[in-house]
Amino acid sequence: MLKVDKERLGQTISKFSEFGATGDGGITRLSLSEPNLQARKEFTRRMEDIGATVKYDDMANMYARIEGTDSSLPAIVIGSHTDSVIQGGNYDGILGVITGIEVLETIVKNKVPHRHPLVAMVWTNEEGARFDPAMMSSGVICNKFDKVTMLKSTDTEGVTFEQALEASGYKGSEENRLNADDYKAMLELHIEQGPVLESGKFDIGAVAGVVGMVNYEFEFKGQSGHSGTVPMPWRKDALYAATKAIEYLHENLDKLDSDLVYTTGRINCKPNVHTIIPNNVKFTLDSRHKDPEVIKSVVKIVEDIPKELVGCEVVVHELWSRKTVDFNETLIKLVEESSEEYGYTNKRMYSGAGHDAQYVADMMPSTMIFVPSIGGHSHTEIEATPLEDCWKGVNVALQTVIKLDKIDTL
Amino acid sequence: MLKVDKERLGQTISKFSEFGATGDGGITRLSLSEPNLQARKEFTRRMEDIGATVKYDDMANMYARIEGTDSSLPAIVIGSHTDSVIQGGNYDGILGVITGIEVLETIVKNKVPHRHPLVAMVWTNEEGARFDPAMMSSGVICNKFDKVTMLKSTDTEGVTFEQALEASGYKGSEENRLNADDYKAMLELHIEQGPVLESGKFDIGAVAGVVGMVNYEFEFKGQSGHSGTVPMPWRKDALYAATKAIEYLHENLDKLDSDLVYTTGRINCKPNVHTIIPNNVKFTLDSRHKDPEVIKSVVKIVEDIPKELVGCEVVVHELWSRKTVDFNETLIKLVEESSEEYGYTNKRMYSGAGHDAQYVADMMPSTMIFVPSIGGHSHTEIEATPLEDCWKGVNVALQTVIKLDKIDTL
Repeated sequence: MLKVDKERLGQTISKFSEFGATGDGGITRLSLSEPNLQARKEFTRRMEDIGATVKYDDMANMYARIEGTDSSLPAIVIGSHTDSVIQGGNYDGILGVITGIEVLETIVKNKVPHRHPLVAMVWTNEEGARFDPAMMSSGVICNKFDKVTMLKSTDTEGVTFEQALEASGYKGSEENRLNADDYKAMLELHIEQGPVLESGKFDIGAVAGVVGMVNYEFEFKGQSGHSGTVPMPWRKDALYAATKAIEYLHENLDKLDSDLVYTTGRINCKPNVHTIIPNNVKFTLDSRHKDPEVIKSVVKIVEDIPKELVGCEVVVHELWSRKTVDFNETLIKLVEESSEEYGYTNKRMYSGAGHDAQYVADMMPSTMIFVPSIGGHSHTEIEATPLEDCWKGVNVALQTVIKLDKIDTL
Repeated sequence: MLKVDKERLGQTISKFSEFGATGDGGITRLSLSEPNLQARKEFTRRMEDIGATVKYDDMANMYARIEGTDSSLPAIVIGSHTDSVIQGGNYDGILGVITGIEVLETIVKNKVPHRHPLVAMVWTNEEGARFDPAMMSSGVICNKFDKVTMLKSTDTEGVTFEQALEASGYKGSEENRLNADDYKAMLELHIEQGPVLESGKFDIGAVAGVVGMVNYEFEFKGQSGHSGTVPMPWRKDALYAATKAIEYLHENLDKLDSDLVYTTGRINCKPNVHTIIPNNVKFTLDSRHKDPEVIKSVVKIVEDIPKELVGCEVVVHELWSRKTVDFNETLIKLVEESSEEYGYTNKRMYSGAGHDAQYVADMMPSTMIFVPSIGGHSHTEIEATPLEDCWKGVNVALQTVIKLDKIDTL
């Protein structure tokens, strides 16, 4: 069976790791920053070398296209993002972009016949690390976000997304946007960013969808006071109330399905002085599960939290939520079949993290391929996937595209 | 019995409330700031008006002295501080300074015979709100702090304490410092800063000492990870570990003496992002009690905390501690007797907060008088004590000084 060139794949990963290298093994390659533009230039060079035509849309998303034997057919697109978080790793996003490059190169160099046009793609500002929110461009293209609002998003230096877009040289035409008429399906390869594949010794994750989630902020209103002068029975300690609430969440959420994940990731305490009783504490809850019924149970538990804890008022603010996205069943099966034909072990799983493909899934058939993350680490410089595992993932993407090319309806 | 002029006392409180007034009922009068210098100027004006001689020492502590009939006797000193925290109230510290002013004025205007010289005093930088640490100048005078180190303490603008001292015009001579040879005893009146007197309907707190305390920082070392991709059993959530530790402290410390107070006032979480599992959380514990045996039990509980909680390493850092300071028994009894002679209800109590008098207590006989704080509030603009209660407190200070003047040995 046809496979991509493992050595070249390794070189490609190394090459892209140079753009924004921190010197500590990782990268900082914020959206439309200089290192990000270098990565885009390398993408263009590689794609033009095999005769692809590279176009940009109005959100600076990039499309490198090679024609098939039937130009009237919609294109198959493979892609991900080149931007990273601050001090991120060498795999998140970029491995999916490299997959697009390597799949197209392998098909061209091996003269693999294909009917559909094939497009390798780069999404702009997926991480949201420079310009909030995450998945900004797929969100605009897929009508999740208002473009005018997005253009006003500002980085920490006061630069707007619109200014960065204009300065980048990658702002193209709205007519070049990904759309349901000219495209057949989207495939995105990504690192898992969790420990499930590695610990289960799976080579490939066939991604069935992206789990639904709810986000809340809990606020506790107490009474500040001097740490030495207020006897314990008089106290309304907002941090102690928050502690009780976190315990409440663990006690109750742990009774739900074992696949449920929930995180209290951010806590802010006022006045946050060691000699003053806290009078205001806020923490966030992020909870995710594929089954909307389980999410409903989470919401019920959140809503049932006592309105007062250790004398403090408890207020729950709903921040945002998203429904579970299910990927295209035919595409998921193509991924599984391709994996099995190579003899790779695979696991059907939901993605706990958000990805551009989840927005695209509303527009056209889409799915994702996961490869293992060592130790489950991601968004850190130690993020890594062994070359062997990257290679298996890209091979599965290659085979999935070849199989998909032969299918007329999804 | 002789009493101070209540109306004038109210005017004095109002006058000092102008210096650094925030417009929201409180003051910001940081040490050696312009409003602080205005308050010092008003102190000087009032004291010189009754014929007092005003001197400063090398830490800008101020001493307004009136002579007694026997200049060979050591002086009785009454004082507190004029500086405030940011957005503090109109009573903390300044009421003790006003007490010195009013007591001396009452004695002079009423020609009350006294043998000892009497000194009204202002301590510099008690709050530590501009220059860390708190009780800086009493700490230097009483050999608790190294002066050279203190001079280098820097405010948020980069100004050193030494620079502020030089610029203030209040830097005097080291020979003017409070000392055990030239002074007989120190008396400090202060608001309670807690709810005990008000809730127990006591007019006066006869302060027996300042409670001992221990301060710790607890650190929890977990593993960061994406909130959506790491199944619950894999997690090492540092915030959850901190929550368990706070629960552990409450469970165990609550079994100790009911007078024990403890506060987890400051918590810092990293990376503090709602979609990332916290990998490092630190919180502080401040615990106070008059009995060293109870403090020993606190230390034991702190030391016995599990070394691992929910998979996270637990590290305990001792920050600092202080022993209980006991005030002079004869002085405490003079306060109680004076209070009873006026018919004021009084309660013997320990101070949970630190005050300059606790350092002075190591140098000469000292004690404090507390007056009620409405709602126990302090270090806030709503901090208040009714004029009636302030007046009762100043009367007790007056009577205590008159009684003390008649005693030869303490």
